[in-house]
Amino acid sequence: MRARKKKWAPEELSSNPRILRNADAYASLKDFYGNSPKPLHLEIGCGKGRFIAETSRRAPEVNFIAIERESTILATAARLAEETGAGSVVFVHADVNNITDYFRPGEISRLYINFCDPWPTKKKRARRRLTHDNFLAKYEQLQIPELFFKTDNQILFEASLESFSRMGWILENVSLDLHKSKMEDNIMTEYEEKFSAHGPIYRLEAHPRPGRIE
Amino acid sequence: MRARKKKWAPEELSSNPRILRNADAYASLKDFYGNSPKPLHLEIGCGKGRFIAETSRRAPEVNFIAIERESTILATAARLAEETGAGSVVFVHADVNNITDYFRPGEISRLYINFCDPWPTKKKRARRRLTHDNFLAKYEQLQIPELFFKTDNQILFEASLESFSRMGWILENVSLDLHKSKMEDNIMTEYEEKFSAHGPIYRLEAHPRPGRIE
Repeated sequence: MRARKKKWAPEELSSNPRILRNADAYASLKDFYGNSPKPLHLEIGCGKGRFIAETSRRAPEVNFIAIERESTILATAARLAEETGAGSVVFVHADVNNITDYFRPGEISRLYINFCDPWPTKKKRARRRLTHDNFLAKYEQLQIPELFFKTDNQILFEASLESFSRMGWILENVSLDLHKSKMEDNIMTEYEEKFSAHGPIYRLEAHPRPGRIE
Repeated sequence: MRARKKKWAPEELSSNPRILRNADAYASLKDFYGNSPKPLHLEIGCGKGRFIAETSRRAPEVNFIAIERESTILATAARLAEETGAGSVVFVHADVNNITDYFRPGEISRLYINFCDPWPTKKKRARRRLTHDNFLAKYEQLQIPELFFKTDNQILFEASLESFSRMGWILENVSLDLHKSKMEDNIMTEYEEKFSAHGPIYRLEAHPRPGRIE
């Protein structure tokens, strides 16, 4: 997601207490939460942060980390979290390509991917999709037991179904039209609210096949 | 699919040369084709037969068998095949539940399932879906290497995606809106033509994971 420059963003990035700075220095981002017994859920590509702000507010029993590669957007998300009284969530300006450097295997107990870049047209860019086999292998390496994914992009969802099957992941609660389904308490992203009038929202939950995670 | 009684059906069932009679007596339905070197493709639940008539006409290099549990509909399909100059296709009044009695492992090289009964509402009926785990196990037992499936029923397609993933099958060429996709030479069933205006047609190809088929 590209964003216009915002004058307040640099100040927000340097002062918002929910933004983890010098994240590269962390041996593991989970260390931020110290010895907290709560499970850790991660959103990759949190965008403007409405989803994670509301999700964390509703789940005080969970610690959250949200990462985003665009710093201005990250600042927007962190500001929203502060303003709306989000739950236990911190934000990191980070590249998901390096996710296996940030966490140790077993630390993350749920992964959210919401409306990621679909890379819809160029086949050679398909490797950049966050549900591509390459990324699923990273999530397996981190022993993430469940992944919640939604998108409005038909081509991305089709390709994702194929990736999950190639990698042997097990799908549950697949919805091919989320807003017409009976999923209670769906928390919409900004993007989702804006674009759901144009077509269905697709959603699934996926688990690596038992045995692939020790 | 239910059908009105047709006066000509009994005569068709007893005289149409494309209908295999006493199918139960066959050690294997493929024996009908004797030592033909052509691959054998099977459609289960052929309905009124437009799909298999046209598919067989376009693929003279393949032998086809179509089965259907409603005899009147089977008669309609066999009559259409005769009238339209279908290719190498025969019809059998048979119950797919007994499919492993009709064929030997390795005989069928492709399976078509088009717009089967979705059993959409009652969970305990889900076992009757032709893409339920129980049926996928039968197809594995018969060592069928590929399955082509399409439906307009969202609930059925969602459940099927979950079944295929549970059973470890690999998906290819998933389409969540077949008629807007670029699939060339899609051959429509009667049902498909009638109902595709009401919503998307879903389609996929699936293969048992290598190693499950010896």
